[in-house]
Amino acid sequence: MGMPSSLDALIEGLRCLPGVGPKSAQRMAYHLLQHDRPGAQNLADTLQQALLVLRHCQRCNTFSETDLCARCQSPKRDASLLCVVETPVDLNMMEQTQAYSGLYYVLMGRVSPLDGIGPRELQLDRLLARAGDGLVREVIIATNYTNEGEATAHYLSQMLKSRGVGVSRIARGVPVGGELEYVDAGTLAQALRERRPLLD
Amino acid sequence: MGMPSSLDALIEGLRCLPGVGPKSAQRMAYHLLQHDRPGAQNLADTLQQALLVLRHCQRCNTFSETDLCARCQSPKRDASLLCVVETPVDLNMMEQTQAYSGLYYVLMGRVSPLDGIGPRELQLDRLLARAGDGLVREVIIATNYTNEGEATAHYLSQMLKSRGVGVSRIARGVPVGGELEYVDAGTLAQALRERRPLLD
Repeated sequence: MGMPSSLDALIEGLRCLPGVGPKSAQRMAYHLLQHDRPGAQNLADTLQQALLVLRHCQRCNTFSETDLCARCQSPKRDASLLCVVETPVDLNMMEQTQAYSGLYYVLMGRVSPLDGIGPRELQLDRLLARAGDGLVREVIIATNYTNEGEATAHYLSQMLKSRGVGVSRIARGVPVGGELEYVDAGTLAQALRERRPLLD
Repeated sequence: MGMPSSLDALIEGLRCLPGVGPKSAQRMAYHLLQHDRPGAQNLADTLQQALLVLRHCQRCNTFSETDLCARCQSPKRDASLLCVVETPVDLNMMEQTQAYSGLYYVLMGRVSPLDGIGPRELQLDRLLARAGDGLVREVIIATNYTNEGEATAHYLSQMLKSRGVGVSRIARGVPVGGELEYVDAGTLAQALRERRPLLD
């Protein structure tokens, strides 16, 4: 006299979502069935469709419906610049700046020894091949300034420099609009160490 | 040069889940596509299956794959007792006590004027019909002790009493294992007002 098996299966199925435990999964299932059946049907359909058509762009590794994504195919992008980011979300953030017109490589993760993710699991050899296409002059490493993002940047710069590709890292410092009073000491110390000369 | 449309659609589709905003939906979509495609396929399948087979038990209103749920069909349950709960989760909690062998009625909600949910939206007439089947002797109201649950209990008891059905409410007081020091003053005041004589 427990729950119907299809309801049990749905609650269990929802737990594949990150951050969703047994209680949330139950709440989600009841909400969908009671209050949003069209939304649930749409979710089933969009999941199915995404699984069918989405794969990785062979060049930049982000999600794409085609072998090469629209960005990698565009003649308007500067093929001499390659920006390495951890995730497609980071790629979107970079695009929103409208300050970059080069191409990207999406790692789909970061070096994280505690989670068993090393250079091999990240398939960094694919990035090396990409960076060695003869057109790329500079690789801009835009991984996060977390411990794992920094470790990833360190690996990458070692690997790329030994192959004679120019490597740079996005700047770190006081955020635009930030007040010294509210910036953490570590950031402020770095901003001091990495100070730039002011030219007239 | 935004995201592939199937990815956009999936992120939008995930937002039908309660408590999931744009950032979480994006994170969920990337997680599923990158790290758990079997889980995503299973979620699509279980959603589809649940939508196909799950409806409401015609007697107790909980989710069921059949016209009458297994519990309502069981000859082992005491048909003279009817316990009214807000949600299927609350029904599960009651069952876990193993202290109740009667039947249930699941409101699938609560009276909540601010959300535009009144007695009509809750279809309380269906509960009245159910309670008036001639077998039910006592209706035990087990809605939450929140403002909305209390308002719902008040409505129900008024409606049921005028029809000559016995009505009771689950007790309220200091939780088992609870220490007075950590119980809020309102609960303690109620526990005092609703004190019971101790019999030898």
